[in-house]
Amino acid sequence: MSFHVYDTTLRDGAQQEGMNLSVTDKLAIAPLLDELGVGFIEGGWPGAVPKDTEFFARARSELTLKNAVLAAFGATRKVGVKVEEDPQVRALLDSQAPVVTLVAKSDVRHVERALRTTAEENLAMIADTVRFLAGEGRRVFVDAEHFFDGYRFDRAASLAAVEAAFDAGAEVVALCDTNGGMLPGWVGDIVAEVRDAVGPDRLLGVHAHNDTGCAVANSLAAVEAGASHVQGTVNGYGERTGNADLITVVANLELKHGRALLAGRGLAEASRIAHAISELTNISPYARQPYVGASAFAHKAGLHASAIKVDPDLYQHIDPRAVGNDMRMLISDMAGRASIELKGRELGFDLAGQGDVLSRVTNRIKDAEANGYTYDAADASFELILREEVTGERPAYFTVESWRSIVERTGSRGSETASEATVKLRAGGERIVSTGEGNGPVNALDQALRQALGRVYPEIEKFELIDFKVRILDQTHGTDAITRVLIETTDGEQSWSTVGVGPNLLEASWEALTDSAIFGLLKAGVSPR
Amino acid sequence: MSFHVYDTTLRDGAQQEGMNLSVTDKLAIAPLLDELGVGFIEGGWPGAVPKDTEFFARARSELTLKNAVLAAFGATRKVGVKVEEDPQVRALLDSQAPVVTLVAKSDVRHVERALRTTAEENLAMIADTVRFLAGEGRRVFVDAEHFFDGYRFDRAASLAAVEAAFDAGAEVVALCDTNGGMLPGWVGDIVAEVRDAVGPDRLLGVHAHNDTGCAVANSLAAVEAGASHVQGTVNGYGERTGNADLITVVANLELKHGRALLAGRGLAEASRIAHAISELTNISPYARQPYVGASAFAHKAGLHASAIKVDPDLYQHIDPRAVGNDMRMLISDMAGRASIELKGRELGFDLAGQGDVLSRVTNRIKDAEANGYTYDAADASFELILREEVTGERPAYFTVESWRSIVERTGSRGSETASEATVKLRAGGERIVSTGEGNGPVNALDQALRQALGRVYPEIEKFELIDFKVRILDQTHGTDAITRVLIETTDGEQSWSTVGVGPNLLEASWEALTDSAIFGLLKAGVSPR
Repeated sequence: MSFHVYDTTLRDGAQQEGMNLSVTDKLAIAPLLDELGVGFIEGGWPGAVPKDTEFFARARSELTLKNAVLAAFGATRKVGVKVEEDPQVRALLDSQAPVVTLVAKSDVRHVERALRTTAEENLAMIADTVRFLAGEGRRVFVDAEHFFDGYRFDRAASLAAVEAAFDAGAEVVALCDTNGGMLPGWVGDIVAEVRDAVGPDRLLGVHAHNDTGCAVANSLAAVEAGASHVQGTVNGYGERTGNADLITVVANLELKHGRALLAGRGLAEASRIAHAISELTNISPYARQPYVGASAFAHKAGLHASAIKVDPDLYQHIDPRAVGNDMRMLISDMAGRASIELKGRELGFDLAGQGDVLSRVTNRIKDAEANGYTYDAADASFELILREEVTGERPAYFTVESWRSIVERTGSRGSETASEATVKLRAGGERIVSTGEGNGPVNALDQALRQALGRVYPEIEKFELIDFKVRILDQTHGTDAITRVLIETTDGEQSWSTVGVGPNLLEASWEALTDSAIFGLLKAGVSPR
Repeated sequence: MSFHVYDTTLRDGAQQEGMNLSVTDKLAIAPLLDELGVGFIEGGWPGAVPKDTEFFARARSELTLKNAVLAAFGATRKVGVKVEEDPQVRALLDSQAPVVTLVAKSDVRHVERALRTTAEENLAMIADTVRFLAGEGRRVFVDAEHFFDGYRFDRAASLAAVEAAFDAGAEVVALCDTNGGMLPGWVGDIVAEVRDAVGPDRLLGVHAHNDTGCAVANSLAAVEAGASHVQGTVNGYGERTGNADLITVVANLELKHGRALLAGRGLAEASRIAHAISELTNISPYARQPYVGASAFAHKAGLHASAIKVDPDLYQHIDPRAVGNDMRMLISDMAGRASIELKGRELGFDLAGQGDVLSRVTNRIKDAEANGYTYDAADASFELILREEVTGERPAYFTVESWRSIVERTGSRGSETASEATVKLRAGGERIVSTGEGNGPVNALDQALRQALGRVYPEIEKFELIDFKVRILDQTHGTDAITRVLIETTDGEQSWSTVGVGPNLLEASWEALTDSAIFGLLKAGVSPR
């Protein structure tokens, strides 16, 4: 029987306090999950959440997955409604997701008090909806909500819901610890009992939350007792204390139990992928996160330091490279020489024989990362540093004399603001002064820079800013914090990303904007004029 | 046999990356641990760490503990040295701590490769040191370092270390998963075997790290297999991924297994104590922390909100008051009238009989959310809307005439920028013009607004901006996108969060800054002047 690694970052993970993913965010996260190698990506609840309906529609044309299959989440039909007439069920079909995961009540108290119907009608709702969707050619998975609580209260009633789902054609029933109150011993015992009750051919799954700090252990206990479908989220995102951290669960199963579960690039890319996803969710990564956290293989104890040098295996539970992490990695996994060499090769620079260049680049990247830069999502800025160290110079397309930004609003709440920016620079032997207007200070700066450079480098006119992200790095100091800006620019065919860091948004943006112009001109084969 | 709750926040917890506790910090944390009701507080390593020597000296006169006993951590005697002549062992005695916890090697590979001695000498070091300290009237606990790894490699050698400790008079031997690589099944099996080997009268303990995400579950597995001494740290502080989170372990044992382990005020104060300790360590609290995290009982899903109102027990694994926490409803685009009514109740507004107000608030929140606002993390902005709809007006502390922000940089890469902002407003019958400077445009605006309002409302001077988050919402349009800003302000005692949305950073920030000033003045009971 195959094993399912089922990711619900985009659906249950998105329930996390403070998380608000746009459709574009979801379309950017899904390929990272696919790259990690999960088998299933639960994209959302089409029909119930308008953004999720849009996600599935856009996914059909914009998303190409190599390993994973998309799953649409939804509910069983409403009480007393014919399944084929239930618009929410129809929306699941319309999403065209090959897998539909239905949440079904499996705690009789919830059936009676929240759903306000009978156990019989609940079983009919499960059976009808599973049968209907399976009949339409969908693979149907069922999330048995509040299963463990329900089973401890009324074993027969909860088992009946599981059996109704299987009998109607469900491929998987995932037993959910919806309120997160379980402990591993309870989960292991209950899964073993359910396994015996439904027989060995049924595929059971587990969906755990971390309210007792045991989401990972509860998932492992279920797998040890016979579950072969595990649900979780990257970085353990989710409501309250979060869902089971899928990377931790899979790393334990692969590295400790020797199972091979992920397709694609798998665990060796886990740290990079987890961090890239936290950039997209804009939720600060948790340094103490198992396996992929920035501190996960960082050693401080004086007791250990000398011995670690002699024999690192005595002081770490796994080789950090197995999850794309690094023992000395206080900054990031990018900063190691080996990964910089690899990255250089990816960009067409063979640094294998050039120890000096490699050392200089590594040191510059380490210094920059210590100051808040990140190159995981800013290949173009990284390549500019690499080129500069290889060739000994930075292409001199222009020299900046000064810039100024003014934003002004007259009147009270609701009035319009006016933003303008003036850039003074030298290019092509001239001194150019250009003023741009925009709907905000960064937009105005971008306009002014583009207009100024366009006089000498008309190639720049086809560049367009398509993504702009801001991150405040040290949140304890309020507006005194460091600001990091990541921007993505396209020339209509390809896009590139640059990073800027500064004491405020405009300085950081200016750095990313100028890097982007330089990189774009380089890429277009334009020589400094 | 009594059960030991043994806290090592001040010793092993302090190994966390970025943590640097002064003696004064430790003297402030210890009474909080005592108030929580732990049995033992490991204060540090006197003799090895000068600050820790001082801690024990000052503790004798400055610390009065009601429940807990202080433990000094140290090592067994050095190889080939007489125990009574070992200055590190002498320092343990001199600390006058009633308990001494000795770290002892129990993995033969560490004995040979790190200690560079024989298994026999290691056993003599353990026996000599335990016997000497016990003979001096100390209660001696032994931390069997790398025990689980050692036991899996050479069971007899590891057991011999444990037996040497007990035979020499150790009261407890804590089995340590020093590298954190264990899974609960392994821990449970090994503790059960050791239990059988040493006999039922010996007190075994467990010391777990979270490298597999299983520190809590590993601690529980050890207790279920017969350990009756649990070590951990508040907030799971510690090297790498941290130690077992002591509050989570104890909450599971008390609330799930019905044991009574804490003295003092116990779990009902756990949330306050955990947060107070994070203030002292200056490490931001982790919102998703089990039991005591700010999000631990926060509900977002609209699916649940209506049912939670009816029957909260169906949706939470314990009553949050048991750990001094609260249920919170998050206002989000998934929320409907039911969650807004609940949220109103939380803020002291009974909307149950006021269908009109409830509808107006719900509609305003929905509209605002469709435009990019989020109230999950902006209670103060939500409360301002609620008050406005309940009372029919917004407090008229001031009227804004205009504001302007200028940011200027002269020179190339690396030069400094200058930011200034001018605010013109009417308050207290005057027209006020104020210019502020800052390290960026938002900081300058904040300064200008604060100075202008301070002339009429001096109460505002104690407000301080402590957190500032920026999010670009629709990333497909680059700098044309909508910007959302969340800010957190404190008056030194409590903090509140506001949200602003606009076409650019400054407009969004301005809205959040003015909402924050209005809310702070309201909260301070100030009337418009």
